[in-house]
Amino acid sequence: MHAVVIEDGSLTWQERPDPEHGDTELLVSVRAAGINGADLLQRRGAYPAPPGVPPDIPGLEIAGEVVAVGRRVTRFAPGDRVMAVVGGGGQATAAVVDEAHALAIPDQLPWDEAGGFPETFSTAYDALFTQAALGIGDRLLVTGAAGGVGTAAVQLGAAAGAYVVASVRTLDHAEALADLGADEVVAHDAVASHGPFDVVLELVGAASLPSVLGALATGARVVVIGVGSGARVELDLRQLMGARARISGSTLRARSHAEKAMVAKALSRHVLPLLGAGVLRVPIAERVPMAAATAGYERFAAGGKLGKIVLLA
Amino acid sequence: MHAVVIEDGSLTWQERPDPEHGDTELLVSVRAAGINGADLLQRRGAYPAPPGVPPDIPGLEIAGEVVAVGRRVTRFAPGDRVMAVVGGGGQATAAVVDEAHALAIPDQLPWDEAGGFPETFSTAYDALFTQAALGIGDRLLVTGAAGGVGTAAVQLGAAAGAYVVASVRTLDHAEALADLGADEVVAHDAVASHGPFDVVLELVGAASLPSVLGALATGARVVVIGVGSGARVELDLRQLMGARARISGSTLRARSHAEKAMVAKALSRHVLPLLGAGVLRVPIAERVPMAAATAGYERFAAGGKLGKIVLLA
Repeated sequence: MHAVVIEDGSLTWQERPDPEHGDTELLVSVRAAGINGADLLQRRGAYPAPPGVPPDIPGLEIAGEVVAVGRRVTRFAPGDRVMAVVGGGGQATAAVVDEAHALAIPDQLPWDEAGGFPETFSTAYDALFTQAALGIGDRLLVTGAAGGVGTAAVQLGAAAGAYVVASVRTLDHAEALADLGADEVVAHDAVASHGPFDVVLELVGAASLPSVLGALATGARVVVIGVGSGARVELDLRQLMGARARISGSTLRARSHAEKAMVAKALSRHVLPLLGAGVLRVPIAERVPMAAATAGYERFAAGGKLGKIVLLA
Repeated sequence: MHAVVIEDGSLTWQERPDPEHGDTELLVSVRAAGINGADLLQRRGAYPAPPGVPPDIPGLEIAGEVVAVGRRVTRFAPGDRVMAVVGGGGQATAAVVDEAHALAIPDQLPWDEAGGFPETFSTAYDALFTQAALGIGDRLLVTGAAGGVGTAAVQLGAAAGAYVVASVRTLDHAEALADLGADEVVAHDAVASHGPFDVVLELVGAASLPSVLGALATGARVVVIGVGSGARVELDLRQLMGARARISGSTLRARSHAEKAMVAKALSRHVLPLLGAGVLRVPIAERVPMAAATAGYERFAAGGKLGKIVLLA
């Protein structure tokens, strides 16, 4: 196979041996692999890969065709189209996926959208529903709503009957976010006057969270998923006490194999039907050949995009 | 009746008309009423009473004898011994309690312990179990463990099969806390080396929380109930994300009538049996005549006590 390989902070395109698949795993010929914020951190050496995945090949999500299966695999066969969150090593022409983490790609969904789906929708679904128990009629704030997780969360919130307020750095993509289901699109620093919020998905960090904390409804649940603008914030505990609110942090990557399987199962049950029906979309900001990954990473770092940047093998 | 009345920040002992009880309420001849941190805040004008309670009579918990009942009361009759959390007005010789908020006092429990039980055990029970879902084998940290809520939480944690670490400002009461069920008693600034904690009941605030945040187990639940040492803390969101932990704030006082009834019902079901059996105790640091409430408040403010300060009518 060929793979994007991190060497001294640069991305190179190298030939590597194909990965070996175990009893419960699928060997997948990768067609598309999304770029995520964690890939950029890993490139800078700030987000080491967990044990068991290639330490120098980034990539947390893939879509591709099954080419071989382990002897205990029951749900998939060669030729099937699958997509999955992986612990790393996804930005290569071949990758290994445990079948418990694999999702069947709906028939109409093109490869690029499938490659940009797993990580962002898993993250958004887990945060909104499993952790924050988002319900119909809740007022949801998604900060940094134009990014990959943000566009997923706006759509999931709207699909679940929440009133969705999307906050963004610039209003360039306001119309596109309204198309995805946002009831209001506001600038980060204007959030305080659009609450109080029952659920907040915080994707920005220090530049956003302080104004959010003054706009919490009683019993509010704030889930912090991204801290690209900084991770240190001053917290007034009286605000949390007054609102009886909670702030939690979350990542998918550090979870156990079994926990990731639970996330995949929930996604398969609750989200794939809506993706297959076209209710949910995967907005693609840009498609980049995998061999030219550096350009994709630079586009990601530049910001201002709507949705995903996907590498195509 | 006579009541402790806040006048320009001072506590006076005044005659007032007896309160009138409604259809679902009990008129109680108060025998004992605990002092809580919120009373001191209210005296300073920093914690106004909610609507429907006397604005100038402090007191959030009472124990006494029922002297009259409203026409819809079914569970209590004159002569019954009851204790309850009240929205205010408890530090008086008479008070009104909705029967949904009243708890039957176990036969052997003396008035002083009953008067110091409701607020602290309600707060600790609700935080540990309803909010933080404390389970057997969890490692629990109770900060400020020597106070009223702290001594309740240490006992409840031990009774529930948790491993209890109690943190204190000084180690004066280490032995007494061990008697109450603490497995370890440590100074606030030493907690970091006694984790990682699954559940933290934070009763101290800014002087304690920063060291706690570095000692959280995966999936930790931190509930902030007290901020006597300050409410502003710097939070590193990466610590929350790395541990997939959550911080919540809570108060009982601002809750609805129905929510308080739920807390009382939970306490009645889960805690009263252990109180009646002598498994749980209400440590009393000092008993003060209600007419001399100022001395009790000063003792509370001085700190260094173990357990409750209770006013006796």
